[in-house]
Amino acid sequence: MFRPQIKVVDCTIRDGGLMNNWQFSDDFVRAVYQACVAARVDYMEIGYRSSERAFSRDENGPWKFCDDKDLRRIVGENKTDLKLSGMADIGRIDPDDIPPKDESLLDMIRVACYVNEVDRAIALAEHCLDKGYEVTINLMAVSKVMERDLDEALDDIGKSRVPILYIVDSFGAMYCEQVESLCKRYIKALPGKTIGFHGHNNQQLAFANTIEAIIHGSNMLDGSLLGIGRGAGNCPLECLMSFLKNPKFRLRPIIKVIQEHLLPLQQKIEWGYHIPYLVTGFLNEHPRSAMKWMRSEQKTDFVSFYDTMVAGEGLE
Amino acid sequence: MFRPQIKVVDCTIRDGGLMNNWQFSDDFVRAVYQACVAARVDYMEIGYRSSERAFSRDENGPWKFCDDKDLRRIVGENKTDLKLSGMADIGRIDPDDIPPKDESLLDMIRVACYVNEVDRAIALAEHCLDKGYEVTINLMAVSKVMERDLDEALDDIGKSRVPILYIVDSFGAMYCEQVESLCKRYIKALPGKTIGFHGHNNQQLAFANTIEAIIHGSNMLDGSLLGIGRGAGNCPLECLMSFLKNPKFRLRPIIKVIQEHLLPLQQKIEWGYHIPYLVTGFLNEHPRSAMKWMRSEQKTDFVSFYDTMVAGEGLE
Repeated sequence: MFRPQIKVVDCTIRDGGLMNNWQFSDDFVRAVYQACVAARVDYMEIGYRSSERAFSRDENGPWKFCDDKDLRRIVGENKTDLKLSGMADIGRIDPDDIPPKDESLLDMIRVACYVNEVDRAIALAEHCLDKGYEVTINLMAVSKVMERDLDEALDDIGKSRVPILYIVDSFGAMYCEQVESLCKRYIKALPGKTIGFHGHNNQQLAFANTIEAIIHGSNMLDGSLLGIGRGAGNCPLECLMSFLKNPKFRLRPIIKVIQEHLLPLQQKIEWGYHIPYLVTGFLNEHPRSAMKWMRSEQKTDFVSFYDTMVAGEGLE
Repeated sequence: MFRPQIKVVDCTIRDGGLMNNWQFSDDFVRAVYQACVAARVDYMEIGYRSSERAFSRDENGPWKFCDDKDLRRIVGENKTDLKLSGMADIGRIDPDDIPPKDESLLDMIRVACYVNEVDRAIALAEHCLDKGYEVTINLMAVSKVMERDLDEALDDIGKSRVPILYIVDSFGAMYCEQVESLCKRYIKALPGKTIGFHGHNNQQLAFANTIEAIIHGSNMLDGSLLGIGRGAGNCPLECLMSFLKNPKFRLRPIIKVIQEHLLPLQQKIEWGYHIPYLVTGFLNEHPRSAMKWMRSEQKTDFVSFYDTMVAGEGLE
């Protein structure tokens, strides 16, 4: 699929950091950055832009904060075509802490919010727009949002200056038909704006759902190397890049960084498809219970997890 | 998705056996059988029905042959609703070796063939029909078949008495759009016949493509426990069973056998998504080169494999 409007966002550090509190070595982050540059990925989301009043530096690595001094150590002045993105969670960042764009190495700020926070998200996103950044709103957990509330949120975003809205399948609960339906609804409600898609792989559908989003008009697409990300992880960037037919993209640097840096990391931290993630996925539940299970001594007791989650069916 | 016509075929032993020459313990095969019975899976494909003149018993376990004495050791007289299937490869079975249905524990014989073997496959399938079996033809590697040849094959099958034809994505090369297109073409060419789908997971799309096949009218669907199968494996049966809404199905026995038998097996033999399988998948090539690579000393040198397969791009 080649549409020149399609942009790819690598979320390896930002979403992968949810599995190791962003304790990546500089070598690792630099290798991912260089691979994204060489592969001509459009954006690299290098972490969260959070306040140090909200999170501790002792527990979290630098990519929870994305200070410019840390960024500069990795990317220099970033004289490349790769744009850098930082994610901001509502309530975890003081808007006044965000410097004007011309004092920052970040090009884009993506504001993540739940449906009841949409108005605060619009305010923060427009604040960032005014400071010179590209912005998106990433509306999380939409698989649990009631129709009336989603209509109201889309209406508010439609009236705002925010140019990009993401469909986020936070629970990895969507099948292709839900993706199609949401794409059509977002596009209809937001004429002239760009729709993005961020999938999770709980049911091994993150890549397939990303293709579905492309077919139905999404033009901003998230992936991560080997699918690294919270729990079951994300759409594998290597799959997405091999699917997209834009002749500018290069797959070889992606495969190289996977071989040299992701495979060794896989020996240290665990992510990807496992039965507990499938269970929370098809139940349309937050994966936190599955993540907790996968960190416990009884991680391979899938039946007990299933029984806990699917009350009543345990008697079969 | 609940359509009462939908039938599920577990291929754990037959396709998984491609990774260990069908050297499964009786305990393992019995556990899979009992799980399929308890989960109310429709069919279990317990192996190949091959001639001992074509393959050696020294190299291959009993499920390469599916003799009734071996079957009986596992399933007794199979007084259950689960039907048993055996796959026959053209040229690897003497039709005269197939006993009449009432002397066999197999209920169904699936004839696998390439497009140039369709007429021989029809002859074998009708021979099995006449002996009392249910039959399918599984037309392999259709992603490499030229349009004119496929039309002719569909025409021949349309005129035959064979009631079921499978779309087989042998190379794990299809995206959802190809699945949609093939479903529509098979259904149009074969009014009144059933269409099946067998996917492979080279691009992490086996489950998604199976859903796509269901949406576009396929009613016979293959899966295997934890996706075990050749190379990248198949559609995970647990995903498929959690998607289908037929109230007769039970997921818990599937999760239980995965926990108790598939997890231990995963320590001994390797299957599932890896970069070399992605590469042969998006190149629409047979996975044999990727499987050979994954068995070699250099298995994690993904870049060299990519360079070998994508001649010319190695200079990037």
